[in-house]
Amino acid sequence: MGARLQSFGDGQGAGRLRRALGYARANRPRFVADLQSLIRFASVSAQPSHSGDMANCAAWLARHLREIGLERVTIDRTGGQAIVRAEWRRAEPGAPTVLIYGHYDVQPAEPLDDWRTPPFDPIIRGDDLHGRGASDDKGQMFAHVKAIESWLKTAGALPVNLICLFEGEEEIGSPHLSAYLTSNRGGLAADCAIVSDMQIPAPDRPAITYSLRGGLSVELQTRGQKRELHSGVFGGAVHNPVQALCEIIARLHDGHGRIAIPGFYRDVREWDAGERAGMREAGPSDAAMLREAGATHGWGEPGYTLYERTTIRPALTVCGVSGGYNGPGVKAAIPARALAKLNFRLAPDQDPAVAERLFRDYIARVTPPGVQTRVRTVMRVKPASLDRAHPGVRAAARAYRRAFGAPAVFLRSGGTIPVVGLLQEILGAPVVLMGFGLPGDRIHGPNEKFSLSNFHKGVETSIGFLAEMGAPRAAPRLYHSFSPVAERRPRS
Amino acid sequence: MGARLQSFGDGQGAGRLRRALGYARANRPRFVADLQSLIRFASVSAQPSHSGDMANCAAWLARHLREIGLERVTIDRTGGQAIVRAEWRRAEPGAPTVLIYGHYDVQPAEPLDDWRTPPFDPIIRGDDLHGRGASDDKGQMFAHVKAIESWLKTAGALPVNLICLFEGEEEIGSPHLSAYLTSNRGGLAADCAIVSDMQIPAPDRPAITYSLRGGLSVELQTRGQKRELHSGVFGGAVHNPVQALCEIIARLHDGHGRIAIPGFYRDVREWDAGERAGMREAGPSDAAMLREAGATHGWGEPGYTLYERTTIRPALTVCGVSGGYNGPGVKAAIPARALAKLNFRLAPDQDPAVAERLFRDYIARVTPPGVQTRVRTVMRVKPASLDRAHPGVRAAARAYRRAFGAPAVFLRSGGTIPVVGLLQEILGAPVVLMGFGLPGDRIHGPNEKFSLSNFHKGVETSIGFLAEMGAPRAAPRLYHSFSPVAERRPRS
Repeated sequence: MGARLQSFGDGQGAGRLRRALGYARANRPRFVADLQSLIRFASVSAQPSHSGDMANCAAWLARHLREIGLERVTIDRTGGQAIVRAEWRRAEPGAPTVLIYGHYDVQPAEPLDDWRTPPFDPIIRGDDLHGRGASDDKGQMFAHVKAIESWLKTAGALPVNLICLFEGEEEIGSPHLSAYLTSNRGGLAADCAIVSDMQIPAPDRPAITYSLRGGLSVELQTRGQKRELHSGVFGGAVHNPVQALCEIIARLHDGHGRIAIPGFYRDVREWDAGERAGMREAGPSDAAMLREAGATHGWGEPGYTLYERTTIRPALTVCGVSGGYNGPGVKAAIPARALAKLNFRLAPDQDPAVAERLFRDYIARVTPPGVQTRVRTVMRVKPASLDRAHPGVRAAARAYRRAFGAPAVFLRSGGTIPVVGLLQEILGAPVVLMGFGLPGDRIHGPNEKFSLSNFHKGVETSIGFLAEMGAPRAAPRLYHSFSPVAERRPRS
Repeated sequence: MGARLQSFGDGQGAGRLRRALGYARANRPRFVADLQSLIRFASVSAQPSHSGDMANCAAWLARHLREIGLERVTIDRTGGQAIVRAEWRRAEPGAPTVLIYGHYDVQPAEPLDDWRTPPFDPIIRGDDLHGRGASDDKGQMFAHVKAIESWLKTAGALPVNLICLFEGEEEIGSPHLSAYLTSNRGGLAADCAIVSDMQIPAPDRPAITYSLRGGLSVELQTRGQKRELHSGVFGGAVHNPVQALCEIIARLHDGHGRIAIPGFYRDVREWDAGERAGMREAGPSDAAMLREAGATHGWGEPGYTLYERTTIRPALTVCGVSGGYNGPGVKAAIPARALAKLNFRLAPDQDPAVAERLFRDYIARVTPPGVQTRVRTVMRVKPASLDRAHPGVRAAARAYRRAFGAPAVFLRSGGTIPVVGLLQEILGAPVVLMGFGLPGDRIHGPNEKFSLSNFHKGVETSIGFLAEMGAPRAAPRLYHSFSPVAERRPRS
């Protein structure tokens, strides 16, 4: 605090900010205990067996938001998992409205055997809180909840009008969010939205994500003869849908790690040297990425760094494959069918609908005689890009610098956050991506964890960001030009 | 009966045979009911969860053998599933000893959803008895049990000394049979062994199998980085063990369906035109095999009929593959490992140990950087060949002709029956393969069934075979030259 604090508020504002920060520091152990309670719910949106956990988690979260002083807290039905929504609308006249998006659902915890501690029994080891969802996204979402609490329990008010929108279907592609946002467009109008569901490169390198890859998830099924066949009687005489699936998957990449689907790279932008140099400076080195992955070798498209391969280039991941007998011992049969789950990540400017059509055409072409293939599309998300020069982004950068003691870098992410495009398109709200995760958090994998230092810095960043957004003098400059801005086009 | 019956016994023998056959015909409904009781045990040797069913099945079978009049019935421990053994040693002096081998274990019933009726609740529809193991091998084994009962309940004696050896681990490669045979070599000495665990081409075409393929079952595991990785953060930058496994599997065959492992065909015999013409005459046409498989297209090595591809040529079947997340919805992660279950069928003269070495060498060579592979050998079985001119085989042919009303053809099988080689090698007993199954029995697959007509004809074939073997005049001709004879070598 001090010099920077003076720049965004009057004397009264600075005092209030100091008290909110003091409250957050004094209550750190309880904040962590509350977060542990939230992680205990096995809120796995992908698995119907966890629907009770989903409902219990939403109920707990709603009650918690009421307890910290938010108003009009509701558990809103959708066609799928509920959305938890809360508001606070009593800011001073002229104050902007900020929408905070988070998601309380988590990835499946499987394979369970690979967890050193139970995924839904959050445990602190050193500076880390271990558990499914600790980083993605319960811990990051909760940093904002505790920032709100810190303001409301000290100043009795927030510097801005506020909407919390906590989704339960992010990990399955937010299938009902679009309809929800559309039919609640009026009540959700905001000057700016915040999403904290990504990582920063290191504890001393806070970052603002300005680019996300798109996504396309498909299931590819192969079928052969109607029933399993004895591999002695028929082995060598009829095709095998498991083998055929493997052969088709093998033809999805060329020998160099490039996606082999004809036309797939047509819309992938070639970036100019300036952008790539900036990425090299701000982003992780190949060595750092390999270290983080625990991998010995890089793989993929030649001519690009690993950071580039995961951000400005598309990727195709075989997330799962299954077919035939996989139990103990031997079952000597030619299976009747097999299934693969594939996940494309799409570079900026790629359209998931186009990618899907190219994929379907290619599969039809490489399907061998005697085998049938079927493609089912599970999820389509457009890539998203944000203007780094945006005043809201700059406010976030100042809040980051104060809480983390270091300037924020600007990064591209290889991930996909469907809500970003939806918030921008449907609500017209510019989205600031403010991550608190770290590269070693193992999100989506076993032994997910979240740095408690980052959690607490996240709370302080959010406290500061709300102050920045509510500072009367800063407001006109900050908001009146706020709208999604197209990313700068390259020269070529 | 009549003309043929006179050829193998004296008048008393013919009368006894007539009474045994009459008993079998009069008791058909009860024979079927007894077989249903046997099928009700879910004796799946591959799945530890069924170990109780295995034990109960063995106990029921032993009790049943005692009830029909066999002696010295024991349930013999092995390192795995028990062997049920029974004897009858009171034949006239000079009578030979016949060993009847069968197995009471069955293949796993999965995928359960594909069964129209529960696999272990045997149901009769038309002429068929439906249930797991109905054909492989409970029904075929039981035909001999009921033949023995028919002799003992009418003549009060058998025409031969007899040993029943009913195994519980055939479907998992008979891992303990070799040790059992070796340490019980003395008590199991026999002049001839019978195995009924194969099919005949059609109800009016009984067949004697004179060639079996060998087998090699392996598990191939791929591993990448230690843990699953987020496919957004790392997709495109590190290799994926599921994708790598698919790519390796794709390289196991060339584009024409030939196994692509260097040297794999070196020991595969090229048969002369005479043998191949005989096979074309006796064996099924391509169209018949496709019909039986329910397949629209053949597949595999060019230059050979489907029957040849499945008997005198090797085959490699991908029986199962699994890796990554295969539950509902999407899990966007790069998996840490994957597993395939592969089953080789080896042509006559191929050595499973050699095939295994070639496979391991090839896998090591095609494993890409950043991925580790591991091969685990689960089962190795040598191919087996029998002399068609053998007198015991000819006795079986006569018994078949009488029961089925048609001459027996001589066939090669693409399957693998480990016990055949073991019985020949360890006990020195020539093995006659006497199948009662039909091509449409769907063994190893869902909705397995067994023709009740064939079951009853099988009982009568066995009754007649025992008579042939016990006929005093025939005995010297039949047995004294009995020993495994190497298959005729081709000219080239």
